Amino acid sequence: MEWLSETLSFSTRGKGLYTITGDVADVVRRWKVNTGMCFLFCPHTSASITLCESYDPQSRSDVENYFERAVPENQSWYQHIYEGPDDSPSHIRTTLSQSSMSIPIDSGKLGLGTWQGIFLFEHRSVPHNRRLSIRALKIE
Amino acid sequence: MEWLSETLSFSTRGKGLYTITGDVADVVRRWKVNTGMCFLFCPHTSASITLCESYDPQSRSDVENYFERAVPENQSWYQHIYEGPDDSPSHIRTTLSQSSMSIPIDSGKLGLGTWQGIFLFEHRSVPHNRRLSIRALKIE
Amino acid sequence: MEWLSETLSFSTRGKGLYTITGDVADVVRRWKVNTGMCFLFCPHTSASITLCESYDPQSRSDVENYFERAVPENQSWYQHIYEGPDDSPSHIRTTLSQSSMSIPIDSGKLGLGTWQGIFLFEHRSVPHNRRLSIRALKIE
Repeated sequence: MEWLSETLSFSTRGKGLYTITGDVADVVRRWKVNTGMCFLFCPHTSASITLCESYDPQSRSDVENYFERAVPENQSWYQHIYEGPDDSPSHIRTTLSQSSMSIPIDSGKLGLGTWQGIFLFEHRSVPHNRRLSIRALKIE
Repeated sequence: MEWLSETLSFSTRGKGLYTITGDVADVVRRWKVNTGMCFLFCPHTSASITLCESYDPQSRSDVENYFERAVPENQSWYQHIYEGPDDSPSHIRTTLSQSSMSIPIDSGKLGLGTWQGIFLFEHRSVPHNRRLSIRALKIE
Repeated sequence: MEWLSETLSFSTRGKGLYTITGDVADVVRRWKVNTGMCFLFCPHTSASITLCESYDPQSRSDVENYFERAVPENQSWYQHIYEGPDDSPSHIRTTLSQSSMSIPIDSGKLGLGTWQGIFLFEHRSVPHNRRLSIRALKIE
């Protein structure tokens, strides 16, 4: 067994779901993990990660629009708005999605389903640099 | 340390929470893992997994009804409805629940709490076949 | 590689987010894990765990208030209310947050982001004793 570790950086252009499936898959391929487990961790409080339908961009915009409606900006009861109207909503949206996940690696590939993609979910209106910790336990 | 791997299949009869605690526990028992970690991964974009109250069926139907109300079908702003009114809602509901989880194994058993059960959460109206990847890191 | 295991107990004073970052970090420090993975598991159906903004208490109360509004008590359609108006809402809120997470350990420390904290999320109105399973895979 072997432990592999890398941190990727992504530049976002503001709110939305950014496909990072290829970036994570590239790391796993480079590590030559045939069987094992891939651990993703997003060290931010206003950006998160999620697995989402990756074929139809309209599916993604429906998810984005849902979060915009379910956790709306400009609610009178928000107290934490130092950094703008997207401040508290960005933390709440992070809580409702994921900051860590574990994906099996089989036959040298991430065990994602046919339609699954890995997405970085930016919850801030302005562009940000985001990091993603990728770890793998390599069995063989 | 040893790595164990199996994929289970489940037939769903449409939307709802399906108890799979026994199925996962059976695999762990068969693997004779005394101490370790169990990793579950659901490779679908319109079905997910969750840990839920497993004693009272009414608790489960309240969770199901909540998701039906919080992510309703037939919203005018949904764009991704090729496969019916449950299309985008099923992806959003997946995002709001889990696709991966890790459960400790102690003394040969899943370390679930007294009332916790593992559930496959089907978000599609029509029956589907669903897979669940089970992996275990066996320490002893 | 080494496997480390401990269960912490926490007394809550009713609903809310309780900072447990220091408690988890203390365990990891005591274990002298330099590189590895930390796995957290919350074995309850009316309490969960989440990663949240840890600097401003108002950010936390906004998250708490959001859950209070998004999953309100006293809805006529709730069936599972044996234990009071917080019964079903507490299970639904658990489903919407996390029961398991995995956090990388690098250079002897949890790989949390600058503003990230680990929180126990109590969903019950009255005080409870809650457990948290901490496991670590120690690489070095």
